[in-house]
Amino acid sequence: MARATLKDVAQFAGVTPATVSYALSGKRPISEETKARIMEAVEALDYVPDLNARGLSMRDSKLIGVVVPQTEPGDRLMFQNSFYSEILGSIEYYARQRGYHILISATDANESYMTLARQRNLDGIIVIGMYPDEFYQQMKKTQIPIVLIDSYCNDHYYHNIRIDDAYGSYLATRYILDCGHEHIAFFSGQLKENGVMKKRLLGYRQALEEYDLPFREEYVFEGQIDYAAGIRLSGELLSADLPVTGIVAAADILAIGAIKGLFEAGKYVPADYSVIGFDDLEIAQYLTPGLTTIHQDISRKGQKAVELLLSHIEDPTLPKQEEILQLGLVERGSVKKLK
Amino acid sequence: MARATLKDVAQFAGVTPATVSYALSGKRPISEETKARIMEAVEALDYVPDLNARGLSMRDSKLIGVVVPQTEPGDRLMFQNSFYSEILGSIEYYARQRGYHILISATDANESYMTLARQRNLDGIIVIGMYPDEFYQQMKKTQIPIVLIDSYCNDHYYHNIRIDDAYGSYLATRYILDCGHEHIAFFSGQLKENGVMKKRLLGYRQALEEYDLPFREEYVFEGQIDYAAGIRLSGELLSADLPVTGIVAAADILAIGAIKGLFEAGKYVPADYSVIGFDDLEIAQYLTPGLTTIHQDISRKGQKAVELLLSHIEDPTLPKQEEILQLGLVERGSVKKLK
Repeated sequence: MARATLKDVAQFAGVTPATVSYALSGKRPISEETKARIMEAVEALDYVPDLNARGLSMRDSKLIGVVVPQTEPGDRLMFQNSFYSEILGSIEYYARQRGYHILISATDANESYMTLARQRNLDGIIVIGMYPDEFYQQMKKTQIPIVLIDSYCNDHYYHNIRIDDAYGSYLATRYILDCGHEHIAFFSGQLKENGVMKKRLLGYRQALEEYDLPFREEYVFEGQIDYAAGIRLSGELLSADLPVTGIVAAADILAIGAIKGLFEAGKYVPADYSVIGFDDLEIAQYLTPGLTTIHQDISRKGQKAVELLLSHIEDPTLPKQEEILQLGLVERGSVKKLK
Repeated sequence: MARATLKDVAQFAGVTPATVSYALSGKRPISEETKARIMEAVEALDYVPDLNARGLSMRDSKLIGVVVPQTEPGDRLMFQNSFYSEILGSIEYYARQRGYHILISATDANESYMTLARQRNLDGIIVIGMYPDEFYQQMKKTQIPIVLIDSYCNDHYYHNIRIDDAYGSYLATRYILDCGHEHIAFFSGQLKENGVMKKRLLGYRQALEEYDLPFREEYVFEGQIDYAAGIRLSGELLSADLPVTGIVAAADILAIGAIKGLFEAGKYVPADYSVIGFDDLEIAQYLTPGLTTIHQDISRKGQKAVELLLSHIEDPTLPKQEEILQLGLVERGSVKKLK
């Protein structure tokens, strides 16, 4: 089907293209009679305004870019961790309610996201996770409103949505201490300076300190945030032969992997080891036993990011905003009470 | 930063805009010297061609639409079932390798996807799952190449990628029969005419028939494809007081929910009930015990869909293509051998 243009509509209605444009945008008043004739033409020709073309003239492409980390450079989206699918589902939903579409991409070390942002005329960008400093320095050159999710980047250009990661793992560790465990391991993703994992480790240390227990370097097991790392870290824990009875995992998928690794070695949760997670992914409540974990409202994180971004798209002069969402502990069946 | 236009580049290089366009597209030969001058201008002005604008003139927006079902009209993406996140991760990855971006959206009963496709000048569309007939009738009016994943729509306009769903659940049921179970329940999503669930039910029936066992209507439990439905269906099974010892679940997340429901009622898998799933989601191997299930190569489904779509974008005259991917059974720990 040949696509009708604004010009076709104008010709059909016997008016100038500018008049059609005014009628459709409502930017200038035109007579009811002319408007009716134009709407007839729009209907007859099945005319649809081109959003890409709008983007060109008005920087209003109704397109939001969403940047998601990759497991490896050049690799896929980090969908193995359903934290990402849950938050993307939420971002897509709230963006759609407001008439925006989202363009999801994994950043590629080879590809400059800045080029993409300009090629696509993005109205705004949501960045999930932490990236190298260089990325943030490049991104602000786009001059596009950007909201960071789960980043501790302090640059004033960016708006932030996050949780208090240290407080979350403080809650987790305190709970497992309250249950009577004293030798508690910490299973972590990569501990990068100023990263989320480092903050979560901090909370674990703070809880130990509060209970007058020493922090032991050998109780910290570092891997990646995936199931396989959880299995591997359990193996390391078991072969280290420590008096550990509890594990604070810095992410639910690490906790799930850890439980699997223990199971394969003939150790059961919570009978032999107690495990607490972080995130409260959908799956956490459907495990047997259910995973005790730190609940963060992933869907709300997505919603807030969209709202914050759209308010800055509408008014780019608004000052930098940071929003820290609530956390809570969800008690299920993966931690044994020793007292 | 004011964005450089093609005109700016032409002015800077002292040539006409058409010459710049020829130099960048390679569509007409121009002298090396002129080309060098133009490339200098491109660099100096930091010029990036606008993909949206390209889309306007050449129907080459490098944008692929991906349609995903919603749980409820107006609701979110179906990300609770990580089948969708796994396949989207794969589609995004392979599209990116070929220079395309993807625009993911849930279809909304209120929003015509056709309008979106034309507004965004989509080069092609991948549709995941089954939709009402009307949707397929509308979609072909776009005249854009479309690949359907997991659909039994026979319309010659569409290309198809799917598995043999009946064969998959035939394999699952035969396995559980081979393990010595005779009273086997079938847990299903909504059984729609010509839908995937109906095909999977068919495979279950075929296996029973092969083993000379009667098909019993009361052994079929129908719900939705989500965890909560699995829990609910287990409850129904337990209160029906049938001699069932095995469950063929038409999706892994139904199986996981079923195992949870049994666990809450004090019944264990595989000691009290044997359960087999369908899909082999990432999580299936990390459960304790691991879930025995029908493996389909979800990532490959995404890859094939991208390849098929791009070949039809490049050559729209290619005939309709259908590709049926392989299935296999993965034996883990959720089915007890009675013999």
